[in-house]
Amino acid sequence: MSTLFTNAWVLTVDTAMTEHSTGWVHVEGSTIEAMGAGPAPALAGAEIIDCDGDIIMPGMVNTHCHMGMSVFRGLAEDVDDRLYRYILPLERKFVTAEMVRIGSALSALEMIEGGVTSVADMYYFESEVGKVAAEAGLRAIVGQTLADFNAPDHADFEQGFARVEALVDAFAGHPLITPSIAPHAPYSTGLAVMERIAQWADAHPHVPVQIHLAESQLEVDWAQENHQASSVSVVRQSGLLRPGLIAAHCLHLSDADIALMEEAAAGVATNPRSNGKAGRGIARIEALRLAGIPVGIGTDGPMSGNTLDLFAQFAPVSMFAKLLAGSRKPLPARDVIRMATIEGARVLGLADRTGSIEPGKQADLIRISLSAARLQPIYDPYSMLVFAAGPTDVTDVMVAGRWLKRAGVVQTLEPKKILRDAMQIACAFKAEMIRIDGETA
Amino acid sequence: MSTLFTNAWVLTVDTAMTEHSTGWVHVEGSTIEAMGAGPAPALAGAEIIDCDGDIIMPGMVNTHCHMGMSVFRGLAEDVDDRLYRYILPLERKFVTAEMVRIGSALSALEMIEGGVTSVADMYYFESEVGKVAAEAGLRAIVGQTLADFNAPDHADFEQGFARVEALVDAFAGHPLITPSIAPHAPYSTGLAVMERIAQWADAHPHVPVQIHLAESQLEVDWAQENHQASSVSVVRQSGLLRPGLIAAHCLHLSDADIALMEEAAAGVATNPRSNGKAGRGIARIEALRLAGIPVGIGTDGPMSGNTLDLFAQFAPVSMFAKLLAGSRKPLPARDVIRMATIEGARVLGLADRTGSIEPGKQADLIRISLSAARLQPIYDPYSMLVFAAGPTDVTDVMVAGRWLKRAGVVQTLEPKKILRDAMQIACAFKAEMIRIDGETA
Repeated sequence: MSTLFTNAWVLTVDTAMTEHSTGWVHVEGSTIEAMGAGPAPALAGAEIIDCDGDIIMPGMVNTHCHMGMSVFRGLAEDVDDRLYRYILPLERKFVTAEMVRIGSALSALEMIEGGVTSVADMYYFESEVGKVAAEAGLRAIVGQTLADFNAPDHADFEQGFARVEALVDAFAGHPLITPSIAPHAPYSTGLAVMERIAQWADAHPHVPVQIHLAESQLEVDWAQENHQASSVSVVRQSGLLRPGLIAAHCLHLSDADIALMEEAAAGVATNPRSNGKAGRGIARIEALRLAGIPVGIGTDGPMSGNTLDLFAQFAPVSMFAKLLAGSRKPLPARDVIRMATIEGARVLGLADRTGSIEPGKQADLIRISLSAARLQPIYDPYSMLVFAAGPTDVTDVMVAGRWLKRAGVVQTLEPKKILRDAMQIACAFKAEMIRIDGETA
Repeated sequence: MSTLFTNAWVLTVDTAMTEHSTGWVHVEGSTIEAMGAGPAPALAGAEIIDCDGDIIMPGMVNTHCHMGMSVFRGLAEDVDDRLYRYILPLERKFVTAEMVRIGSALSALEMIEGGVTSVADMYYFESEVGKVAAEAGLRAIVGQTLADFNAPDHADFEQGFARVEALVDAFAGHPLITPSIAPHAPYSTGLAVMERIAQWADAHPHVPVQIHLAESQLEVDWAQENHQASSVSVVRQSGLLRPGLIAAHCLHLSDADIALMEEAAAGVATNPRSNGKAGRGIARIEALRLAGIPVGIGTDGPMSGNTLDLFAQFAPVSMFAKLLAGSRKPLPARDVIRMATIEGARVLGLADRTGSIEPGKQADLIRISLSAARLQPIYDPYSMLVFAAGPTDVTDVMVAGRWLKRAGVVQTLEPKKILRDAMQIACAFKAEMIRIDGETA
């Protein structure tokens, strides 16, 4: 199957940031065959998509998410003890394979709507997340979480490891889904278990490791009290600080921590809206990037960051870098778009196949309509994408040559059923919250 | 003409934050007649709008804008000297009554699309802004700017005052448009002229005063060097710090400055995205609000803040308050919505007629569709509005009982013509920028 996008404003996001203000992209099967400027070449048998001047760019990469948690979206907002008061009790009572399936489907729907084509996820019952992502047609790293706090799908680490093994077996060789192991965080895994995970990961070099790292003051204090070291140092000591580690948040980093992460060739998923909303702080993105560490953008789970498109993260990630420096210059808009695409793909170990429009890469593409008044005029497409565009400007989404959204309509999921299922769960949550409030009143 | 909104989730944003999860609103002519919970009363001759569970809420109030500048949107992003290198030269060469008309029309279109029903504007050729806003059907405070830097429409303050007088005459008694006088900033007006403006304002008690205040380090230094005082103190000395003063930005405020502003009964327009993007800092919104000062949200001009809907400001204003405090608790979502509606109306002196759904107020209403996946589930409508909704969720907009947007279509403007005109200006700007870059290369 050949598809030829013509009359498109092509942003390739290759190393040279090659841009064709009027150009074309040729997709053959699941792969990008070629692209160029000017009128498209004749191509017998290809479906021609006239883009009418719209932008064609790489699909976006969400480097940190908890897809199952969309059913918690906006629950107990602005409450400091929401985690212990509501979230953990609700998770223990309600998180089942079915809930994860429903929450993940709602998240997949939202990500496709907003132009995300690759996602790194970590949660419980993660095999269900993999199934949903595969059906939806998303490219996904799916990480089974391991944690010591009586997690909903494993009473102890033995059960947790069994879930990891089952996940790895279920998706071995899958073209879109990469199984992953995800120790929750240093303080909720502990040094000994992190060492065991590091050994397991040594034996499974194609299984990426994800972890929440240097996210909170609680974690900093834990590392100091128990190991007289920084959180990054403890992870390094365990052997987990390694090439391809996907470290989410990284708010509390010293220069020495950054040097350790660079030396280990780890990657970072920054989650600006989640961190900002929690009042936790601003990640030192420019320092990480200057050190040569790949930094992608994550939405975090919808309980923390509310939405799963990357547009909502662009202004925050940009403003935070500029506020830290007291200048307009840091993290220019084109670098934000690189973080959202090719840099994110590097963080996830997927840069050989996605994140830019280059011959031989997978056809993970999105089309952005420029018809909204708020987008015009356009002096620079990256500025427009970062500071004016939104998820509703994404009209078409393709992953590996398959249409996930076409002419504004999601092709691979049933929105009505997904929303109905999600609202049913939300009703149960509401009832339980009323019960909790009653008990503590 | 009677209109009855039925089957609506009514957020009144009255003092008690009264909410009807299934309710109705009755509009009679330009005025809100009544509202309530449950099924709507029978009303002979009324047009019935079945809202199908969508939200009906007050139209939003944009407390600081430069509508004419939409044609500068995204120009020279990330460049520290953009103001002196590009913007001022472009303004001097290109800002005419026609350009202001075109830019303001594009801004009016965008604001209506995104649910803004009232705006405070300050720029040049401001009579044109008033005409455009009136035609578009927006409620607007239109402020003729006075500045000493060879402004595009006045060579000196005499000419500037003549423009103010003409503006006041042109819109005397207009039901939607309130003329205003807008000294650009303390450093660009000077103490003597601010004194003159204060006297003029004493003689015109119904003409609100707008000013950029405590916006930059440059201004702080100016006040210190020339008057050995804070910028707020200098404005107070001039007599301009007064009830109803609309002070935009207010980034550099000491506790003493806040006390002076509270004592004077001035209001503040905070512009979080504009301030964040410029790397200028975070306004102490919670301190201002605790002092009893009304604080509304502004978009600033589209050159600084890019977009003109308030949704794009919600996460930044909220995150900034939480980051300053290091906690999730400050500025809860419902307070953000109050700032975007009734508090903004208070800042603009319009709270007697807009900003909440109450009997006798003007029918300035918007309808928000809840159909997008990213909005669901909804545990709290204010959290949904602040952290998940966007301008494209606004389906209907009414000001003073007149439909400005209906079923997704703007009723009072011609989008195609506006966009064509704006793009023509953008072409001229691009050519001039290339010339400037050539000269300085």
